[in-house]
Amino acid sequence: MGNAVRIAVDAMGGDIGPSVTLAGAASALKTHQSSEFLLFGDEAVVTAELAKFPELAARARIIPASVSIGMDTKPSIALRQGRRVSSMWMAIEAVKKGEAEVAVSAGNTGALMAMATFCLRTMSQIDRPALACLWPTLRGHSVVLDVGAAIGGDAVHLVNLAIMGAAMARIMLNVECPRVGLLNIGVEEIKGVDQVKEASKILKELELPMLDYRGFIEGDRIGWGEVDVVVTEGFSGNIAIKTAEGTAKQFAALLREALGRSLVTKLGAWIARSAFTELKTKMDPRQVNGAVFLGLEGVVIKSHGGADAFGFARAVEIGCEMVEQDLLARIRQAATLVEGRGAPRAAQAQEAAK
Amino acid sequence: MGNAVRIAVDAMGGDIGPSVTLAGAASALKTHQSSEFLLFGDEAVVTAELAKFPELAARARIIPASVSIGMDTKPSIALRQGRRVSSMWMAIEAVKKGEAEVAVSAGNTGALMAMATFCLRTMSQIDRPALACLWPTLRGHSVVLDVGAAIGGDAVHLVNLAIMGAAMARIMLNVECPRVGLLNIGVEEIKGVDQVKEASKILKELELPMLDYRGFIEGDRIGWGEVDVVVTEGFSGNIAIKTAEGTAKQFAALLREALGRSLVTKLGAWIARSAFTELKTKMDPRQVNGAVFLGLEGVVIKSHGGADAFGFARAVEIGCEMVEQDLLARIRQAATLVEGRGAPRAAQAQEAAK
Repeated sequence: MGNAVRIAVDAMGGDIGPSVTLAGAASALKTHQSSEFLLFGDEAVVTAELAKFPELAARARIIPASVSIGMDTKPSIALRQGRRVSSMWMAIEAVKKGEAEVAVSAGNTGALMAMATFCLRTMSQIDRPALACLWPTLRGHSVVLDVGAAIGGDAVHLVNLAIMGAAMARIMLNVECPRVGLLNIGVEEIKGVDQVKEASKILKELELPMLDYRGFIEGDRIGWGEVDVVVTEGFSGNIAIKTAEGTAKQFAALLREALGRSLVTKLGAWIARSAFTELKTKMDPRQVNGAVFLGLEGVVIKSHGGADAFGFARAVEIGCEMVEQDLLARIRQAATLVEGRGAPRAAQAQEAAK
Repeated sequence: MGNAVRIAVDAMGGDIGPSVTLAGAASALKTHQSSEFLLFGDEAVVTAELAKFPELAARARIIPASVSIGMDTKPSIALRQGRRVSSMWMAIEAVKKGEAEVAVSAGNTGALMAMATFCLRTMSQIDRPALACLWPTLRGHSVVLDVGAAIGGDAVHLVNLAIMGAAMARIMLNVECPRVGLLNIGVEEIKGVDQVKEASKILKELELPMLDYRGFIEGDRIGWGEVDVVVTEGFSGNIAIKTAEGTAKQFAALLREALGRSLVTKLGAWIARSAFTELKTKMDPRQVNGAVFLGLEGVVIKSHGGADAFGFARAVEIGCEMVEQDLLARIRQAATLVEGRGAPRAAQAQEAAK
């Protein structure tokens, strides 16, 4: 294992494309020096861009792809037009073929999800993949999932999210037994939707050794870092993360506006500028760029479409860490344990709940 | 009508009780000088507290209630123990009897919702009540609903939320034809859950004169004030508002921490202090305290349990505005229009979606 991760990059993905993805890969290479890169995309464009990064060029191979998936292409059309021939598909397929261990794309989420699921398939115990991200908190970071891959889901789906999120948290947050909470609209046992209450029961019963189930958590406690993993289905998870992003930007805009109001406030802001730099760094969404598709037979990382080179590098680095610490084996191990220990009880509980 | 609103106050509700609710009522009286108050609660306690506010005492009557509903009491138990005899129930019942036009309580949300629904009943066209709040945005405020009254709901439920939210927005935001958006996880028509897509179709078809339907809105755009009314069912709405609250607090905590890091940053912060006062005022959750139960045959306002007198006064004031501008008539008018014009089409659309 070590550091020799082979990374398949969808060089054409994202709002900008190769100038960002290659600069990002070059930057990630600095922290993961023995990595190797497969760069999928328009040969002429990628070759020209790669010439700017000799160190990356020495560890990268360009693989021509004739199609680039647009940022607004519908998943079904992306699959029809881009299967086998697009940079996005080929990057994912490299993982399937074992030519790479992780695929990274800043391309459109729906298309990436459709292609990754179609090409790699889900793990046997997992019904649908999930998208997990790092969420900056007052204590550091938490893993939040699903932030938009699969809408809805029953209690067993939520339990699977919990074990997959815990596996990711163990790698990214370096905690042996991550604290897991189910996102709900109250912390009392009687509150919330049935599948969330049911998932809570199952998680309590299972007493899994790889996670520390802490019950329900409300939206206002995510940013406090009360748990390491926040579990919810894709609709509410997406709304939570987008709302948090929007609120952070709103706060920053109001702060900027207020500080620019007069010469005096501008002077104060200039004197205290190190504080604003610190705040900006801590709230910088690029730091946590790189959502992980969980539940697939392969590691696929989704970078924000608008990420710059710094952000894309973070996505590549997150991919490397997932591979180095063998995310898939950790999830398989946990899923097998759940299946052996809990599936019957879970099924009974589900039956009883009907 | 004018300003002579009769307000029923659950004096015992909230984390603190009468010292906050009476101080809040006294403060609200300053802006709504001809209001009259019915104060429900423990006679001795409320009498002692009222003595501190002679101006309020001149316009208030104490009505003894033998039971106070605890902040953690389950709704079913609250109904059993508190029906007819609790300060919360009696305040609501005063609205039903026509002795007051609005009830305001800082008591527990579940109990208040259960009692209000049981006592006042929902309007004939409305299946379940909703909880709507004001959300501070970069452009002012928006109305967001449902922030936690009813979990889930079909397309018609969401359409009802849209017309009720628009009625509230017209009053609170003073816009003739509020822009309405459906909260979703993407703005494309193909995205999201079926009932949201269906509600979108119905709203487009109805072409209601009292609202300007703008399609889907994502969580990160709420704070931008892109629309005046954001519509979603109670689970995701509660998660959105709590997550925004949490993120704002997180941002404020990080800002405080960063500014307190050194003497220099402290000095800068002191010089620019007017900017922080401005920011604090704009983000002050007390400014928007007072969520409105919509869809009931009466106006009931829910104050935050932890609100102080300033916050509770805001809740009372919001209640007064709802009454003065006849929220109920506006909702009834819109609901009747929908029923006449759209219900058949809506039903057809629902049928077709199956």
